[in-house]
Amino acid sequence: MKRVLVITGGGDCPGLNAVIRAIVKRASQEKEWEVIGSIQAFNGILWEPTEIKVLDEKTVAGIHYRGGTILETTNKGGPYAWPVKNTDGTWGTVDRSEEMIRKINYLGINAVINIGGDGSQQISQQLFEQGLNVIGVPKTIDNDLSATDATFGFQTAVQVATEAVDKLVTTAASHNRILILEVMGRDAGWIALHAAVAGGADICLLPEIPYDVNEVLEKIEERFVKDRGFAIIVIAEGAKPKGGTVSEIDSKEVGYKNRRYGGVAAALREQLQDAGCKHDMRETVLGHLQRGGIPVAYDRVLATQYGTKAFEMVLDGEFGHMVSYRHPDIISVPLKEAIMHYNTVQEENYLMKAARGIGISFGDKLE
Amino acid sequence: MKRVLVITGGGDCPGLNAVIRAIVKRASQEKEWEVIGSIQAFNGILWEPTEIKVLDEKTVAGIHYRGGTILETTNKGGPYAWPVKNTDGTWGTVDRSEEMIRKINYLGINAVINIGGDGSQQISQQLFEQGLNVIGVPKTIDNDLSATDATFGFQTAVQVATEAVDKLVTTAASHNRILILEVMGRDAGWIALHAAVAGGADICLLPEIPYDVNEVLEKIEERFVKDRGFAIIVIAEGAKPKGGTVSEIDSKEVGYKNRRYGGVAAALREQLQDAGCKHDMRETVLGHLQRGGIPVAYDRVLATQYGTKAFEMVLDGEFGHMVSYRHPDIISVPLKEAIMHYNTVQEENYLMKAARGIGISFGDKLE
Amino acid sequence: MKRVLVITGGGDCPGLNAVIRAIVKRASQEKEWEVIGSIQAFNGILWEPTEIKVLDEKTVAGIHYRGGTILETTNKGGPYAWPVKNTDGTWGTVDRSEEMIRKINYLGINAVINIGGDGSQQISQQLFEQGLNVIGVPKTIDNDLSATDATFGFQTAVQVATEAVDKLVTTAASHNRILILEVMGRDAGWIALHAAVAGGADICLLPEIPYDVNEVLEKIEERFVKDRGFAIIVIAEGAKPKGGTVSEIDSKEVGYKNRRYGGVAAALREQLQDAGCKHDMRETVLGHLQRGGIPVAYDRVLATQYGTKAFEMVLDGEFGHMVSYRHPDIISVPLKEAIMHYNTVQEENYLMKAARGIGISFGDKLE
Amino acid sequence: MKRVLVITGGGDCPGLNAVIRAIVKRASQEKEWEVIGSIQAFNGILWEPTEIKVLDEKTVAGIHYRGGTILETTNKGGPYAWPVKNTDGTWGTVDRSEEMIRKINYLGINAVINIGGDGSQQISQQLFEQGLNVIGVPKTIDNDLSATDATFGFQTAVQVATEAVDKLVTTAASHNRILILEVMGRDAGWIALHAAVAGGADICLLPEIPYDVNEVLEKIEERFVKDRGFAIIVIAEGAKPKGGTVSEIDSKEVGYKNRRYGGVAAALREQLQDAGCKHDMRETVLGHLQRGGIPVAYDRVLATQYGTKAFEMVLDGEFGHMVSYRHPDIISVPLKEAIMHYNTVQEENYLMKAARGIGISFGDKLE
Repeated sequence: MKRVLVITGGGDCPGLNAVIRAIVKRASQEKEWEVIGSIQAFNGILWEPTEIKVLDEKTVAGIHYRGGTILETTNKGGPYAWPVKNTDGTWGTVDRSEEMIRKINYLGINAVINIGGDGSQQISQQLFEQGLNVIGVPKTIDNDLSATDATFGFQTAVQVATEAVDKLVTTAASHNRILILEVMGRDAGWIALHAAVAGGADICLLPEIPYDVNEVLEKIEERFVKDRGFAIIVIAEGAKPKGGTVSEIDSKEVGYKNRRYGGVAAALREQLQDAGCKHDMRETVLGHLQRGGIPVAYDRVLATQYGTKAFEMVLDGEFGHMVSYRHPDIISVPLKEAIMHYNTVQEENYLMKAARGIGISFGDKLE
Repeated sequence: MKRVLVITGGGDCPGLNAVIRAIVKRASQEKEWEVIGSIQAFNGILWEPTEIKVLDEKTVAGIHYRGGTILETTNKGGPYAWPVKNTDGTWGTVDRSEEMIRKINYLGINAVINIGGDGSQQISQQLFEQGLNVIGVPKTIDNDLSATDATFGFQTAVQVATEAVDKLVTTAASHNRILILEVMGRDAGWIALHAAVAGGADICLLPEIPYDVNEVLEKIEERFVKDRGFAIIVIAEGAKPKGGTVSEIDSKEVGYKNRRYGGVAAALREQLQDAGCKHDMRETVLGHLQRGGIPVAYDRVLATQYGTKAFEMVLDGEFGHMVSYRHPDIISVPLKEAIMHYNTVQEENYLMKAARGIGISFGDKLE
Repeated sequence: MKRVLVITGGGDCPGLNAVIRAIVKRASQEKEWEVIGSIQAFNGILWEPTEIKVLDEKTVAGIHYRGGTILETTNKGGPYAWPVKNTDGTWGTVDRSEEMIRKINYLGINAVINIGGDGSQQISQQLFEQGLNVIGVPKTIDNDLSATDATFGFQTAVQVATEAVDKLVTTAASHNRILILEVMGRDAGWIALHAAVAGGADICLLPEIPYDVNEVLEKIEERFVKDRGFAIIVIAEGAKPKGGTVSEIDSKEVGYKNRRYGGVAAALREQLQDAGCKHDMRETVLGHLQRGGIPVAYDRVLATQYGTKAFEMVLDGEFGHMVSYRHPDIISVPLKEAIMHYNTVQEENYLMKAARGIGISFGDKLE
Repeated sequence: MKRVLVITGGGDCPGLNAVIRAIVKRASQEKEWEVIGSIQAFNGILWEPTEIKVLDEKTVAGIHYRGGTILETTNKGGPYAWPVKNTDGTWGTVDRSEEMIRKINYLGINAVINIGGDGSQQISQQLFEQGLNVIGVPKTIDNDLSATDATFGFQTAVQVATEAVDKLVTTAASHNRILILEVMGRDAGWIALHAAVAGGADICLLPEIPYDVNEVLEKIEERFVKDRGFAIIVIAEGAKPKGGTVSEIDSKEVGYKNRRYGGVAAALREQLQDAGCKHDMRETVLGHLQRGGIPVAYDRVLATQYGTKAFEMVLDGEFGHMVSYRHPDIISVPLKEAIMHYNTVQEENYLMKAARGIGISFGDKLE
């Protein structure tokens, strides 16, 4: 019996369960293979006792439909940064990678499929260099990986954000208000950009394009005639004003200081008020609604193909590689190359050109 | 030609357009009647020049499906509190009700249908006492009116909040996190209670039941075993801790000081951290998503019946009355009585008993 | 240890799982009680070996969100009509009720909660008369029970049908077509009526009101001017033409002869063509989409209350009674009375008056 | 003033309005341009009097969110096949293309954007060859065009079909039934294939792969153990059995003889019954639900880019070309090449490999 270990690491993402299900269903066609899952990324292997479980067709029945991951996930621990208490009582980390690889071998595991984001795939590459048979499956809700045409979870997040814009439009129009929607995206503004185009927002503020609050206000006033009118602003959580930083704004926002997500919508509202905006403003913070729930069909189809391909790469021994979507194919690319290149919003992206073309303001110049 | 004037006042609510459409379609069967709409509640009448428009079947085609109100709405102005600049430059208000009634008569308007909340219906009653032929249609997203079995908009808000809980469950479970969902409800916690029961939340904090943060924490810990587990908290924007007030918490939350909606989720997170909660926590603030968007079928059916009934009450001359749903009938009740009684969450409501019965904690006692 | 047996019988209905979950969660607060589920209604008890299982909080975690029933359901078998092969090879039925009651007692079961429709509750009453401690929970997607203000599942079906109308409107309008939507409702047209009002259909054909195809055509032509226009027809599967019967139409529809659901939409299309309708017509048959999927919040809230109340009635020994919703309370009514009265669409229902008031044609007279 | 004429032809498709809106909003940035729409494809130009209208930002406000097309669409008429009554009373067609081009020139129209499917783009090419300045925007819900990575509308149709599968799973499982879902796809089975993968169907029958009913039955029986189990079948309307034709089956289905859509689900049910299938079967026919309603975010984003690009191609004089999506760019390709190549489901498509990999049966061989 051969065994493949599956783990999910980093933030959860709609479609993770569809990948797991596809791996298991594809593996069930190869009689000598068994699929094992580790709980909370590699932690299930590292814990004593281990927390691993056999995944069979019954375990994965119907899970493609569910958000989250049946294997749980975490941003803590892992083979290279296992938390240990120092003798002085403080906490440090220790490298347990060699020990973990031995443990994986001891468990009769022949290959590992690591479904995770950038950080997870750097770990994949390191483990591969140390001799582990690793296959990577990319996972990022932000769609910021240039090594693949698309990643699962992104379209679900965009759909959730777009439906939010749809809902805000009617109430904004009825009340002649400005509604600010804060969406995910710390470094890459793809979710905000797609939702702004799909939902028909007026203003879209991205991490990649520092905004000038006066120009935002200018665009708002264009949309109002004598207190009649409304405006929808989509702001990515990583958006920042020109010449300032998020933390400088945050310092005015004591209440937000411990927040990982959220806060820029409220900060923008205060900036606009300070800049003289008299219209009613309200904000909505989607937060984890963007990660949760039922994946859209697009993401389930992509995730399923990632899963079958990953297992086929195990069969073919293509270790140190990552699954990638190059329309219409699913291919494999070396992990080393895959993790080097990011894909943030650039002016030359046609979608940016289209967004400016339909009059969306990015707060970066008077139009 | 007889004319009925329709206005929508107060916060918008899914279903308003369905009421307007039903009035117009019902009126189109009575050849001598015409329907007129005033923009932004009574302001369209009070402005010079007036902003009113004839509503015919073409105007209202397909609007039952849309959130908001084609007549716009506002919380500002109105016949009894029209803003005027005092001679010293400050702003005051003036009573323009007599003038407005004369204007309405001058426009050949025979009756007024006022679709609005508590404040709007008090205005309806006052205007009725001054001789105006007013019919009220109740509108409150909070479902807190005891004069009717249900109000439109509420089920849509509950559905939106419930779908949010559904989405948060999968991500909370995958990350072993606590997710806090802030929903509408300043004085009545019905939206929070319904969403908590429908979505299967663990903890539900309401304006009606002051919470003890230690008891909230106790319930959370029940749900976790050695860092494994998760919890979903639904909190109404009007929820408050025992012995404290929202403003006392808010004073720690400088960033929230100007917010009308929002803030209690972040405040609760900080309280829990102060009380020793070590689990990851994230919050989502639905805000106006609860008011916007497509009304659910239930609300469209109810709103349509309100609209036809309101016009039939005009035909029957039942002025000074309000439309009311007493299952399975739509009846009329005197405005005077209707606006007196509120319906907040009480322990004797069977839904509260059921909620406690399935183990939902309201943070009010250790269970 | 005391045991309560839960069964689900008849057609499935969104909300069944929420009832089961509420019973189990409520029972978990009474330490001496255990909940047992029988598979496929009473068949799990009648089979050898039995198919029953203990239901605990883990079994029911998250099921309120899922359609269907974790206990499965069936229309076949049951205590009073167990299939047996006669000596001549044909099939007959036998009464196994006495044996089943003995078996239930032998299993240490103190009470039975029977979640099911009209047929199921007649069985409840019979079993109660034979001495079994039965509590009924009403289940009908058609909302045709007069003993309760509402039944769970109905609003979900109406929502599904309404969203279908919403989708059909845009395509009908773009193509100047007639779109016919066939929905459930063999004897009661509530789903069709609610969906027609909520979705804004032009024509609604119900089992209670025989239609005249010429009058349907008349209404269609009203909606068209020189080939421009469109019409949406919602037809209940039990709708029938004046002076005819469904089977007479069906006889022209050989392809439908074995169908339980479906067929009236296609039959109506052919009738309209025969009557001279030249416009393009297309039909959609929702079928089991109306029974499946995620229950809307309304149904989950109602189903949860039914579940806790049913268990409380077990505690209180209110056997031979059925749970009922009398707004805002959940009460208990004698099964005997509950199963006697049906609630079909009547002209005096205000919703019918409202539907006619907004111009919906029921095909019963020229308007 | 320069004028661009926009027309929508062929079957409607979610996203058409988003294309129109993007053209208008992009054009509004070029002061000397005006956008004109013709009603019902080119018919609005051909009719006397013409039915054309100026499209400005107000006309297109909010339409990206709506299904259908504000310009209406049709499969009838057009410049090359205008219906005329022959002298003997029969109907024939006449070529009015030269006359139409003169009329377009006379109206001061400088360029035409033709949003339509294969047939429409053949007309575009012909008109271009006759000297008209035409730009094509591809529109096919079936996603069967090889000249572009994707077409708008397809993901919406897939999402609708997938949600239907999701709903059917719970009811099928509760009743141990076979549920058959009929989806669009006369020549290309992409919608069926995507929905089957995304929804987790067991069997998927496509136009490209003739099925053997005995093999379908074999797969069904695999899913059942002693009457327990269930199966979901997704069938494209163009699916056909091996060695037979759709019309041969249809001939048994008298009731379906006039149907353009629908019928294969019922035909399959009868075939399965004839082949000895004893399980309960029910069918759902989605019909135009797949074309209607709110486009998903993906389709709105793609359609918006198509619209801005089309107008930019007008500015650049790239006539005789069609807009195309080559990830991540929107490019232009010669119409002549674009309309030659179809993209049907092939075994070498990775999605087919993935579908077989997770065990979906296509009814083409015993597994």
